[in-house]
Amino acid sequence: MSASCIFCKIVKGEIPSFKLYESAKTFAFLDIGPTSKGHALVIPKYHGAKLHNIPDEDLVELLPVAKKIAKALEVDTDGPDGIGYNILQNNGRIAHQMVDHLHVHVIPKRVEKEGLIVGWPTYETSTDELKSLQEKILAKMDQ
Amino acid sequence: MSASCIFCKIVKGEIPSFKLYESAKTFAFLDIGPTSKGHALVIPKYHGAKLHNIPDEDLVELLPVAKKIAKALEVDTDGPDGIGYNILQNNGRIAHQMVDHLHVHVIPKRVEKEGLIVGWPTYETSTDELKSLQEKILAKMDQ
Repeated sequence: MSASCIFCKIVKGEIPSFKLYESAKTFAFLDIGPTSKGHALVIPKYHGAKLHNIPDEDLVELLPVAKKIAKALEVDTDGPDGIGYNILQNNGRIAHQMVDHLHVHVIPKRVEKEGLIVGWPTYETSTDELKSLQEKILAKMDQ
Repeated sequence: MSASCIFCKIVKGEIPSFKLYESAKTFAFLDIGPTSKGHALVIPKYHGAKLHNIPDEDLVELLPVAKKIAKALEVDTDGPDGIGYNILQNNGRIAHQMVDHLHVHVIPKRVEKEGLIVGWPTYETSTDELKSLQEKILAKMDQ
């Protein structure tokens, strides 16, 4: 817990929230500055800013809880008219992270102009670069 | 497994990939059409299109594996010069999903113009709407 962290205060109940879920390790609530209707946040109670700061045991529930919320938001229609949604977790200011306590966004996407707008520039690469990158990453991974 | 799914073929080795990780339930590899250097994908071996189609047991490893890759990409520097990254999982065409087998993107963000470009329109809401939405979601959640 961090005394100055707004999300830690929400977990402790010092700041009210529209709570959706709570377990021993996980908390979820509606974003009060949503980018679409039903925009929710799922967070570990463990305080850490970025994905690589959080112990695995505090990460495992996050996607299952995001799924519970997505289903409740009635996105579980798979036809061409089904509602879309994005799961987004930002790390660092340059990557659009605003609060330094890890949070997973559940962002409904019913129409093009609401929710997450995805820009996707192309990065030019080559088989040689990908192979070299693979080797470099594998050498550093603690598998 | 789906016979026609490109990601199932990658898991089975029928299509080659720059593999980064494999366990009984999870597979990770470099995206060959990256939006930044080191753009990787983490997928469950279980075939399903969207988050709400995947059993919880096939979801729990995805963020821990994404974290392994993020650390190996040397994004584990937390200072103001640290490298940012986005974790993104899209559900539905409207939400930018291109392959109908759930995949979690790990997208490094070193400079503004590479990787995920986040657009974030404001959705006007009110305390009354949030309260009503909370009640509706809670009533539908299988907690």
